[in-house]
Amino acid sequence: MSMNNRGSGIWLYAERLPHVSEQHLVTLGEGRVPLVRSWRIGEKLGLPNLYFKLESLNPTGSYKDRISALALSLAREQGKTACIGTTSGNAGASVAAYAARAGLPYHVYVQENIIQSKLEQILVHHAHVYKVEGMGFNSQVGQQVFENVRTKAAANNWEAVITAFAYAPQAMEAVKTISFEIQEELGTPDAVFVPVGGGGLLAGIHSGFSDMLVSGQASRLPKIAACQSSGCANLVRGWEQGLNKPVPGDSTSLISGIQVPNPPDADLVFSALRESGGFGTALQDEATWHWQELLAVEEGIFCEPAGAIGLAGAVQALQEGRISGNDTVVVIISGAGYKDVHRTKVMTEHAHVPIISANEM
Amino acid sequence: MSMNNRGSGIWLYAERLPHVSEQHLVTLGEGRVPLVRSWRIGEKLGLPNLYFKLESLNPTGSYKDRISALALSLAREQGKTACIGTTSGNAGASVAAYAARAGLPYHVYVQENIIQSKLEQILVHHAHVYKVEGMGFNSQVGQQVFENVRTKAAANNWEAVITAFAYAPQAMEAVKTISFEIQEELGTPDAVFVPVGGGGLLAGIHSGFSDMLVSGQASRLPKIAACQSSGCANLVRGWEQGLNKPVPGDSTSLISGIQVPNPPDADLVFSALRESGGFGTALQDEATWHWQELLAVEEGIFCEPAGAIGLAGAVQALQEGRISGNDTVVVIISGAGYKDVHRTKVMTEHAHVPIISANEM
Repeated sequence: MSMNNRGSGIWLYAERLPHVSEQHLVTLGEGRVPLVRSWRIGEKLGLPNLYFKLESLNPTGSYKDRISALALSLAREQGKTACIGTTSGNAGASVAAYAARAGLPYHVYVQENIIQSKLEQILVHHAHVYKVEGMGFNSQVGQQVFENVRTKAAANNWEAVITAFAYAPQAMEAVKTISFEIQEELGTPDAVFVPVGGGGLLAGIHSGFSDMLVSGQASRLPKIAACQSSGCANLVRGWEQGLNKPVPGDSTSLISGIQVPNPPDADLVFSALRESGGFGTALQDEATWHWQELLAVEEGIFCEPAGAIGLAGAVQALQEGRISGNDTVVVIISGAGYKDVHRTKVMTEHAHVPIISANEM
Repeated sequence: MSMNNRGSGIWLYAERLPHVSEQHLVTLGEGRVPLVRSWRIGEKLGLPNLYFKLESLNPTGSYKDRISALALSLAREQGKTACIGTTSGNAGASVAAYAARAGLPYHVYVQENIIQSKLEQILVHHAHVYKVEGMGFNSQVGQQVFENVRTKAAANNWEAVITAFAYAPQAMEAVKTISFEIQEELGTPDAVFVPVGGGGLLAGIHSGFSDMLVSGQASRLPKIAACQSSGCANLVRGWEQGLNKPVPGDSTSLISGIQVPNPPDADLVFSALRESGGFGTALQDEATWHWQELLAVEEGIFCEPAGAIGLAGAVQALQEGRISGNDTVVVIISGAGYKDVHRTKVMTEHAHVPIISANEM
């Protein structure tokens, strides 16, 4: 029996992805998420052609689902007996869901202070979760965990799912489907604003547009803008200083998903910025939180903080003249609001909710 | 400027819905959610043609988004200046998001013990929320709230959004798009299992298939199965006793969204069951929780408890011989797992998450 759904979602583009046989396909309906036009924010900013790509509406609430679908399909194709990986949360919830569907165990290593709601989203699918001392703070520990994952995977015939081109180049090809979808609905935008943690999302989006330029499906590239927290702006600083490598330094960002002091796909990010005529932009966490709230209040779009950094980046780029008000701009909303229950509490705890009787209505 | 997206989601079927002008359309990309085939549960049950319609992947995590999109579009079409309604949670989060997008204030009345995570999902969009004493327990209070909502809406030129055909028949037409999508992807199934609270979801799904039978797009109707908690099985008991009206009685169900002792669309539910050759089925809350967990663990689908009652109903119907193992069966997964954070905690709090050093991997 097939898991079906070939021919929908990311599988519409199966011929542009690594080969998976019909019977090994693992899908939960990932991809083909809405691209919605800004209704009020774009107008107010003087950026009327502003669009939001709602990756938050993927099956487990983030773009990671595109990668997991391909990763688990490839794992089954190759007869792997389990998955293993690391996560700050979203990749873990995603791989956990797809591994459950595929019937493969999933071993995942997380930082001790992982957001509780993200941990729970992994555990509902019965993944085997281990908290690693020092992970997320100490970059040496992080590097050691990556290497151990690789070693264990190779020794056991397991699939290593670390959502970076540096570790899982085949599965990461699935990110390109974001660009294919944008191109189909909108044509080539002038600029695409992308949250950057490890850099794989940005690299995949650029790679998708590059493929279409080569094949003639597109006649130009959009500028790709790398949006990082100023508390973890290693790539943006490296770009600004013309180093073509990240500036070292710990993360002080409070935003989950983009606290990555050693981005594994740094090289690909720099080439994407160069090739596309793009740029890097660093945003205060406060600015990102501000635009997260405005997205909910003015557009009806509730995303996690990291999902709003692209909008904060677009606003800043417009102010700095890096993009023009006539540009067609796509902001990638990478993850859903429910990912970060703590932040939702902060956003709503001061709301006044009176208790009344029905007579007082 | 248009909010665009006409031509996608529920708006693919615009000509079969109440008229909305292009410039009044309010959309967040609702509808067109995945219909995924069961991979492991169907096989184990001996029901290989089992499908899940993932309404949980709508913009705010429930099928209510289809209704809200049409309701807010109609509100703008008719020059309404605000929305008003009641909710157990999902309709509130949905209308709050769409009202935010449309730029209309939203006044919403909720029960005092509303699930905190559902309340927060309403508040992030800056809706005006009021807790009403006794609502959700006392059916007289519930009735009075409904009437007050209607009165205030009429007096102020506000849109009353109560997601029932009895109160918002035009907006409820949007539910039919679920059936249109199923028919397009799968043809007419043999049976569709639907969670029943107020009954509007079931009535709308039956109405969609009936429309297609009349227009010749379908040649038969699927059996519609009404799935209620045995702690609030007023319709199912009424059906079993041949009364064609609900058996009165308070709700003792612990499952949010289906605790509706006085279902406003009861009459439509009874005619749907009659016309379709369907039936009602009552499930213990424990059975629904059990299948909610199995959906997460065996299929990678994380829904709220009410979203799993249709699967519990299909399993029971198979055991009772009301459906056969060869039938093509669609289960409506009405809402997302993140809706009920408390339940997620219960599902995961006993998981063992060891803390290790990187050397111990």
